[in-house]
Amino acid sequence: MNSSVKYYDDSWSIGENYFNKEWLGKYETILAQGNGYMGIRAATEENYIGETRDTFVAGTFNKFDEKEVTELPNVPDFIQMQLRVNGELLDLTTGETKQYERRLNLQTGELTRTFIWVSPKGTEVEWKFSRFVSKKRLHIIGQKMEVKALNEAAAVEIISGIDGRMTNSGSQHFHEGEKRLKGKDTMQMTSTTLQSNIDFILTTAHQFKLNAESRPLRSRIEMPRRKVENLYWATIEKGETLTIEKISSIHTTRDKEHINHPTEEIEELAVAELKKVKEMGYDSLAQESHKEWEKPVWQVAPIQIESPDPLDQLAINFARYHLHCMTPAHDERMNIGAKGLTGEGYKGHTFWDTEIFVLPYFTFTHPDIAKSLVEYRYHGLEGAHKKASGNDYEGAQYPWEAAWIEDGETTPVWGAADIVTGKATKIWSGFIEQHITGDVAYGVYQYNQATQDQTFMDEKGYEILLDTAKFWTSRVEYGESKDQYGIKGVIGPDEYKEHVDNNAFTNYIARWNMEKALEVMEELKTRPTVKKRLDEQFDLADLADKLKATLAKLFVPQPNEDGIIPQDDTYLTKEVIDLTKYKAQDFVGGLFHDYNLERVNDMQITKQADVLLLLYLFEDQFEKDTKDKNWNYYEPKTMHDSSLSLSTHTTLAADLGYAERAYELFKKARFIDMGPVMTTSNEGIHAASLGGIWQAVVFGFGGVRSLNGELRIEPSLPNEWTGLTYSIYWHGNEIEVSIDKEQMTLTNKTQTEAIEFESFGKQYTVLDKTTVLLTK
Amino acid sequence: MNSSVKYYDDSWSIGENYFNKEWLGKYETILAQGNGYMGIRAATEENYIGETRDTFVAGTFNKFDEKEVTELPNVPDFIQMQLRVNGELLDLTTGETKQYERRLNLQTGELTRTFIWVSPKGTEVEWKFSRFVSKKRLHIIGQKMEVKALNEAAAVEIISGIDGRMTNSGSQHFHEGEKRLKGKDTMQMTSTTLQSNIDFILTTAHQFKLNAESRPLRSRIEMPRRKVENLYWATIEKGETLTIEKISSIHTTRDKEHINHPTEEIEELAVAELKKVKEMGYDSLAQESHKEWEKPVWQVAPIQIESPDPLDQLAINFARYHLHCMTPAHDERMNIGAKGLTGEGYKGHTFWDTEIFVLPYFTFTHPDIAKSLVEYRYHGLEGAHKKASGNDYEGAQYPWEAAWIEDGETTPVWGAADIVTGKATKIWSGFIEQHITGDVAYGVYQYNQATQDQTFMDEKGYEILLDTAKFWTSRVEYGESKDQYGIKGVIGPDEYKEHVDNNAFTNYIARWNMEKALEVMEELKTRPTVKKRLDEQFDLADLADKLKATLAKLFVPQPNEDGIIPQDDTYLTKEVIDLTKYKAQDFVGGLFHDYNLERVNDMQITKQADVLLLLYLFEDQFEKDTKDKNWNYYEPKTMHDSSLSLSTHTTLAADLGYAERAYELFKKARFIDMGPVMTTSNEGIHAASLGGIWQAVVFGFGGVRSLNGELRIEPSLPNEWTGLTYSIYWHGNEIEVSIDKEQMTLTNKTQTEAIEFESFGKQYTVLDKTTVLLTK
Repeated sequence: MNSSVKYYDDSWSIGENYFNKEWLGKYETILAQGNGYMGIRAATEENYIGETRDTFVAGTFNKFDEKEVTELPNVPDFIQMQLRVNGELLDLTTGETKQYERRLNLQTGELTRTFIWVSPKGTEVEWKFSRFVSKKRLHIIGQKMEVKALNEAAAVEIISGIDGRMTNSGSQHFHEGEKRLKGKDTMQMTSTTLQSNIDFILTTAHQFKLNAESRPLRSRIEMPRRKVENLYWATIEKGETLTIEKISSIHTTRDKEHINHPTEEIEELAVAELKKVKEMGYDSLAQESHKEWEKPVWQVAPIQIESPDPLDQLAINFARYHLHCMTPAHDERMNIGAKGLTGEGYKGHTFWDTEIFVLPYFTFTHPDIAKSLVEYRYHGLEGAHKKASGNDYEGAQYPWEAAWIEDGETTPVWGAADIVTGKATKIWSGFIEQHITGDVAYGVYQYNQATQDQTFMDEKGYEILLDTAKFWTSRVEYGESKDQYGIKGVIGPDEYKEHVDNNAFTNYIARWNMEKALEVMEELKTRPTVKKRLDEQFDLADLADKLKATLAKLFVPQPNEDGIIPQDDTYLTKEVIDLTKYKAQDFVGGLFHDYNLERVNDMQITKQADVLLLLYLFEDQFEKDTKDKNWNYYEPKTMHDSSLSLSTHTTLAADLGYAERAYELFKKARFIDMGPVMTTSNEGIHAASLGGIWQAVVFGFGGVRSLNGELRIEPSLPNEWTGLTYSIYWHGNEIEVSIDKEQMTLTNKTQTEAIEFESFGKQYTVLDKTTVLLTK
Repeated sequence: MNSSVKYYDDSWSIGENYFNKEWLGKYETILAQGNGYMGIRAATEENYIGETRDTFVAGTFNKFDEKEVTELPNVPDFIQMQLRVNGELLDLTTGETKQYERRLNLQTGELTRTFIWVSPKGTEVEWKFSRFVSKKRLHIIGQKMEVKALNEAAAVEIISGIDGRMTNSGSQHFHEGEKRLKGKDTMQMTSTTLQSNIDFILTTAHQFKLNAESRPLRSRIEMPRRKVENLYWATIEKGETLTIEKISSIHTTRDKEHINHPTEEIEELAVAELKKVKEMGYDSLAQESHKEWEKPVWQVAPIQIESPDPLDQLAINFARYHLHCMTPAHDERMNIGAKGLTGEGYKGHTFWDTEIFVLPYFTFTHPDIAKSLVEYRYHGLEGAHKKASGNDYEGAQYPWEAAWIEDGETTPVWGAADIVTGKATKIWSGFIEQHITGDVAYGVYQYNQATQDQTFMDEKGYEILLDTAKFWTSRVEYGESKDQYGIKGVIGPDEYKEHVDNNAFTNYIARWNMEKALEVMEELKTRPTVKKRLDEQFDLADLADKLKATLAKLFVPQPNEDGIIPQDDTYLTKEVIDLTKYKAQDFVGGLFHDYNLERVNDMQITKQADVLLLLYLFEDQFEKDTKDKNWNYYEPKTMHDSSLSLSTHTTLAADLGYAERAYELFKKARFIDMGPVMTTSNEGIHAASLGGIWQAVVFGFGGVRSLNGELRIEPSLPNEWTGLTYSIYWHGNEIEVSIDKEQMTLTNKTQTEAIEFESFGKQYTVLDKTTVLLTK
């Protein structure tokens, strides 16, 4: 069997039907829970060889040593419990397991696991585990375990507490914590990170019931190195049920609410808070967490897909669930990691994935969260200035990988060792993958288009647009022979090509960025106070001159005689090989079984959308014919070896009217995390891919586009779909768009203003409800 | 079943007959291997939850952070291999295991494990694992695995390499290592410790055979974080055997031979060495290692016990095996850890365990190794001066816990947190367990008595005796009321009593130490050059005055009217309770289920030999009657909650003529590690207990004693024993002592001089052979 992923027809649950110790990583990731403050992989209570037991708190970066880059430290663990019945350790690889089910309810955010286990010696016990990470109370995690003795009395032993032996694949980010018992069943551990000196206050409380009646349990405290735990024991008769509720909390001195509070005070607060919520009990806490998913998430901009395949709806629910788990909406000093808060991959760092892939979801559905994400980039200006000046550039050069706001560039300089020489290979992205600066500007611009958040623009947004444009004026290189500015020696979105000149995507976004800065200057004429401040900072006249001079001579690759836009100066001169074999493989990287990166660099092979991403983001700059030709040229050369690729292609295919191909690609994009390949999510969820799934649905099939301040909606549903309903926020109005084969109905649910939009060449306005006939 | 420890009648092997995942720690410790350079716990190749996979290299101390004390870091691991047959991971908790046997051959040092495993899906495979830590080549570890397909063809997959994710219970001592492939099947990882900056060069090579014929295997390299490993795969037909030999090496920049050599050079040397030994193959390497156990260990001072119980002989073989595994005989800058090199307990630190419990074994059987151990203390003078001056004392105050020679005191200052306040409890040993300074002097003195190593004494030994005595002159406190010097506020050997005044053991050994220093001054009269040097250092006349003045008024507790020597000033005034219940328990610390340490401090309860140790070490200072009275008083109050206690009591009981009681205690002492209690060795072997077992046999039943330069031999065999043969080295002569019920025959196997000794009040001389009739 290739997959045990269990999909439920309600499109709101995902899980597994039987336990397989080979697939721990897959389920730890896709069934992970979080609330933006923290994320917890779905490691089971009992331990297994091969597990990756990770808990992360957004923004709490630490550097293990000078040779490593800063990363989110793996926090001491609450989840695990050692469980014994009649002396035998619960271990599903032993004995017999019946009626096994593990299910993540995306709607409630609750993860449950139920099974009957017959121990090797024959004790038969029914187990039910539940847990949630509270969406309501960001610091709270709830766990419940119910054990029922089925065939005989069972002596139950539980070792539970806080385990500070967790590492990030061997790197220990914490000093040993201070450990204390706060009353009989409450434990606290305060652990401090080695370099960033963040105190983590971890508190956990236990309570017990026998057949639903409160029942204290006998216990013994143990404090081995880096651990504090209680051993509990009780004997239950045949038919009786023992329930354990373990409610835990994480607070850190990095938390906004705790800034300038002494750790002792936070420790006391945590104990008081836990006392209170423990009394509420697991069920009411789970209930209020569910409510916080319901109204603020699910009822905001809901999406309904009418498709014979329930996985389409599941995919968008799954994507939205994880997007909210991973996004630190509570704190604008933090952003989204490329693996969210679900794995050690990419170390919790923020990439262009945010602006180009994830941010649009929030910009168009949760503008308040989007605002927090763009504000992060404003905080990041300091690091961007540092990076620019370090490279002898001007303005703001955003880091390829960003972590804590002041850190600046955090891309590792050295990657995996060359296996022969042992010398580490250099990671070039941090130096030359420079389109990120344009991507950040793009995110800010798009945010403002959709929200018209003038306050943000006045205070922060204009500054980002100017500062990034200023960078490009210093970045370009003048070539005398052609009397042109070029951008040499970069990596574009296609990371299979390093050190290329004039990567199309990079040059276009640089141009766009500089053009938008000139537009900003126009706008500033009506905003004198803001203008004054920015003029002091930038000398706007001088910057305008520079921008104009640069734009006048900036080279941006144009379609050649065949209509093909060269991905860079040399791409089209390289060897073309037949990729059919590799593209048919259901795993990533098969190409590298036959070629090394150096060879691939010399061939017309593209890792992910590059020119095609350009056509999507700047669609108004290209003719349909050019788009078709480039699609036909580049798509067959694109390996989709990045999780950022399929959804872009889906959207572009839908734009171009290739409905069947779009749906084919969408079905693949859906499966990047929740699909049957059981290993590719081990290191964490693919954040950009999830944002891309939403874009594929709303921008691709739903046809939403915002260009130069204009809203356009031109749906293009797959043949299989009979309907699609989604909502977007535009200028503060929630517009519900309901599409079927015949027509599209827009309902303005806010009605603070009449919203204008274009559809298939015609202009419309919606104040309450407007219908557009779709007659293609 | 309480125990699965399997004892073999040959008295040379110990092992287990079936696998139990609950007892991993016990076997990892008692079946551990080592050669004094390194020690490796007997973790299995495949991983299990609960394993403690430790490899230590003697002397390579590192401090994880400023809050922790220096400890031996857990080295990246070679031993583990992930093994699959037909896709199923080898895991003895699953499927069915038949004919299981794991056996450590103490004689050869080889550990073997054989079993037939029927995988859950029914593939039946015979496995045979062997490994050794080379006694001949200190850097080399050999592993062999043979897999035979019994019922069908088997696709075998092996993931094997070097795993740098190891920690000491969560503390990571290493920067991520540099990893490289050195040819197809050889890998190297160079890891550096965080604080002590020691480079560890770890190299491993694989080779394969199919049915005993060399056969290269297909492989793929993987380099995840902190790991380098190959995946190997091959399919074997039914009846075929695949053999993997994995030969590995550890070198460090702390190694004497590598001092001042650049790391690159050591890396190359390691590859060249490994290439050579790999060609020799596992079997010849194991063979030469066995030879190195045979002649230099087993044939030196062998012991033969004629007892109906083969466990008596096994116990002494087991003790000697582990004593040699743990002792860094190759490097006098290193010493013996309280848990040897077999566990994280006590962090690899050296205690008085060395001088009082382990050193006598080496002094009387391997004087060259003993010399290395006493030289360590000479190197430790710097740290001892630092400690003394830090405490405003003079001379050399040895650290209670010693690690790297320059470290000085390394006892943790803070121990486990108080469970309520969370405040760490202070560990007082490092401050006030001061008898260690006398113990070190005692070790040096005894070493010289047995060896007459005048060169050592001239260069180092006298200095230690003077410097330690000088400490005591500054340490004592004058009490005007009694016109006496006392030693207040100490911990004696009985650690259940903290902050006591005039602990008998401490005061007696202080007196002894000062007396010996005065004797040294006498001896120095005949050694003018040495005297001159030491005079410059100490001002001998002045020191002599101080010593005499101190000794004249030093209070040492005398027997009271009942003949009882007070353990300290207040012990005898404390409450006496009935300890029968606790002494009958087969686990340690049961007392603390009913009382806390504070209460125990107020009762006449002793953790381990204290006054009785005094009677043993300074037996010539007490009458038989006093010894009897004190035995009868203190033994019932002694919990033997330290592994240092039982063997001392055995020896003293034998001395006092309580042969039955002595043998009872011996049987218990035997079982501290190799006995049926399955948890107490988890943190590592009990080094002092193993030295104590040898002392119980040779000093206790064998009756050997050295006092003031005189050798005395007064055997006292248990009734059960019909004979005992052992050898000791005295003044460079190997004396074989063969004892039966009737007589004792001494054979001088070296015959460089006639050795004088006393036995039961008579003087004898042995040049070749002498028989003493034992007529009691």
